[in-house]
Amino acid sequence: MEKNSQNNTDSSLRRISRRNVLKAAGIGGAGMLLGASGIGSFLTSTGNSMTKDETDNNFIPFYGKHQSGIITDMQDHIYFVSLEVTAESRQDLIKLFKDWTNAAAALTEGKGVGEASGKSYLPPKDTGEAAGLSPSNLTITFGVGPGLFVKDGRDRFGLQRKRPKELKDLPLFPLDSLDEKWTGGDICIQACADDLQVAFHAVRNLVRIARGKAVIHWAQTGFQRTKQADLKKETPRNLFGFKDGTVNPDLHNQKELNEQVWVQPEDGTSWLAGGSYMVVRRIQMYIEVWDRSSLRDQEATFGRLRESGAPLGQKHEFDKADYQKKDENSEPVIPMNSHMRLAHGKGQNQILRRSYSYTDGMDPDTGSLDAGLLFICFQRNPDKQFIPMQERLAKQDKLNEYTVHKGSALFACLPGTHKGGYIGETLFS
Amino acid sequence: MEKNSQNNTDSSLRRISRRNVLKAAGIGGAGMLLGASGIGSFLTSTGNSMTKDETDNNFIPFYGKHQSGIITDMQDHIYFVSLEVTAESRQDLIKLFKDWTNAAAALTEGKGVGEASGKSYLPPKDTGEAAGLSPSNLTITFGVGPGLFVKDGRDRFGLQRKRPKELKDLPLFPLDSLDEKWTGGDICIQACADDLQVAFHAVRNLVRIARGKAVIHWAQTGFQRTKQADLKKETPRNLFGFKDGTVNPDLHNQKELNEQVWVQPEDGTSWLAGGSYMVVRRIQMYIEVWDRSSLRDQEATFGRLRESGAPLGQKHEFDKADYQKKDENSEPVIPMNSHMRLAHGKGQNQILRRSYSYTDGMDPDTGSLDAGLLFICFQRNPDKQFIPMQERLAKQDKLNEYTVHKGSALFACLPGTHKGGYIGETLFS
Repeated sequence: MEKNSQNNTDSSLRRISRRNVLKAAGIGGAGMLLGASGIGSFLTSTGNSMTKDETDNNFIPFYGKHQSGIITDMQDHIYFVSLEVTAESRQDLIKLFKDWTNAAAALTEGKGVGEASGKSYLPPKDTGEAAGLSPSNLTITFGVGPGLFVKDGRDRFGLQRKRPKELKDLPLFPLDSLDEKWTGGDICIQACADDLQVAFHAVRNLVRIARGKAVIHWAQTGFQRTKQADLKKETPRNLFGFKDGTVNPDLHNQKELNEQVWVQPEDGTSWLAGGSYMVVRRIQMYIEVWDRSSLRDQEATFGRLRESGAPLGQKHEFDKADYQKKDENSEPVIPMNSHMRLAHGKGQNQILRRSYSYTDGMDPDTGSLDAGLLFICFQRNPDKQFIPMQERLAKQDKLNEYTVHKGSALFACLPGTHKGGYIGETLFS
Repeated sequence: MEKNSQNNTDSSLRRISRRNVLKAAGIGGAGMLLGASGIGSFLTSTGNSMTKDETDNNFIPFYGKHQSGIITDMQDHIYFVSLEVTAESRQDLIKLFKDWTNAAAALTEGKGVGEASGKSYLPPKDTGEAAGLSPSNLTITFGVGPGLFVKDGRDRFGLQRKRPKELKDLPLFPLDSLDEKWTGGDICIQACADDLQVAFHAVRNLVRIARGKAVIHWAQTGFQRTKQADLKKETPRNLFGFKDGTVNPDLHNQKELNEQVWVQPEDGTSWLAGGSYMVVRRIQMYIEVWDRSSLRDQEATFGRLRESGAPLGQKHEFDKADYQKKDENSEPVIPMNSHMRLAHGKGQNQILRRSYSYTDGMDPDTGSLDAGLLFICFQRNPDKQFIPMQERLAKQDKLNEYTVHKGSALFACLPGTHKGGYIGETLFS
């Protein structure tokens, strides 16, 4: 089977060449981000690619200045896992990141993990369930949580002095109802792909590589009707039926990305320059309660029309919201406690949203389907972006009647690496 | 939004016409099953379609002699839900099946549920998250469990005398470790689609329609890398990396389907003729234990080669297994306790397998990913098909070292219906 994977990949590499030439030349739209800072080999220089490969190859390079899976177009599925590190030595931890880097690079190319030993008395290196599958636009993104730097007062890995001040547990927001089983973690792996089996395979094998060094703390799958939305250039709807979170930084604007998404060298944490802070929130939606509320209430809650996604008082989804506009009773057309107005605030805190819907069978507490949003956002500085935004929302958002935040975590997603290097190298060197 | 859906559907209906003409004429392969028994209107006569529509429309008709979702080519995702009926009257139950039938027919066409009221002071009829999406080959399949006929000794709906003798709780097999939260149910709904959001939307709205008449007992999503496998005409791999369950009845052979899948008029339960018994088992896989076992052990466990899927001793996946063949030590090449040999038995009990993989975060008991198989099979008679097969497997199957059955249910999937009729009509009339 490893043989098959190998063949598929070789053929994939051949077949993608034309498209990647266009990309690297900046014609495909992705090259714009490269500037003069492209590093590594030709193929790795497309590692910043933000446009999903819609060819049969569906290949997004792992290597690049930034990790993929951040400004990459959303894939159909996510497999997110949060890990607790059990390794005792810095050397073991470094070895883990090196092994992960090599494995992740192979996985994103549609290869299996490790060479086939050909020895049937040994366990296969790769677990095999993705054999013969295309890369499916797989991206693998690693982040480190506060617990890696100091835990229970212990500086386990000599990293304490490297902890950025922004990397700490998120504050408990009003109405938070966090459950330890969906909260925190020392390391996270975000695997996104257009085929859930491919994403599952990636996480499973990365967890397997970590055996003896890290254990699973929590895991969550998510889905998004992305492919269809992509084709129609539409924003996917959340499980409340609304087009939410449609205001994101312009992924084609390098200046905006540097201001809002990528940690900069001058931010005081040099090892994280080119990385990004990732907030993860497991937000359960009380869909039965929502389904009993009137359309008017629903639209007032989001501040948008359901059908078109337009801001209230406007016609089209991407029309600019008019927060000053008043109705015939001199009330704001976009209510003061609407989700959109509060998320927008004074318009200065943007975040890059990359959320997925989830559903996990029945919630035993309510007898309803346990479903909601695996909210994920990336940003340069959580203290200036997610936290003030969430403080406004947690206090006043009308949406709070229908949702509850049950999980929460903050990770620093490491900068990307080049072939021969490893994710985390800037942190450990 | 309902307006949009309406438009999409109208346009879909236009666009599918040519393909359905071919189908109904028997040219597309699906017409073969119709014989002289085609009922209902032209469109409904394609309701037996077993081939997924790979056009943009992705439309599988709901109406037909049989329910869709049984011999239909597998879609990428399943949303399965088991319900407990709380309705007290037969009339309420009949009303529920009528409402479900109308809703399911609309949903499979990519429409929303119910007409848009246009009244913003009312809750929307449809929850909206699938607005603008294609039907995505959605099929909705209804089944009834033993509890609908008699529960705690009560004949709640005057159905007791109609219960087929085959429709009873499955026996507790050796090594079963069933959990009530994944076992049984009065009614099941199987929604399968190539887009999980479409399947979720269907189940959510059908559950909503049942409010006051039925509550969720358990729900389970599943996935399958079907689309890619379809393209390559390959059997998808399970989470152990193997191509399992590749022996299924020939879906193009009406005689075989009548013998193995569809309940026949002479079977003693006339209301179920054209229906099929559905077994559901939630089988957790101990993937970490599996991943530590040698390739040789893994192959001996299934009785197949991992890479090719070929039976041991053969070269290709669909080569006929030679159960007599001996190795140089005069041991059977396909071990006596291998999964394939035991499932095959004397070769007389076939089942139509239609299983999906599942993954549900971390299993708190093991600290590993909770993942496995939502095993689903259809058959004419569980007493002669699944039960004897599972009795053999539960006692001797080497695979039992790596799996545990945690959920179990048996349902009688009702025959199909025509436009103007309803699913369950044969049972209640």
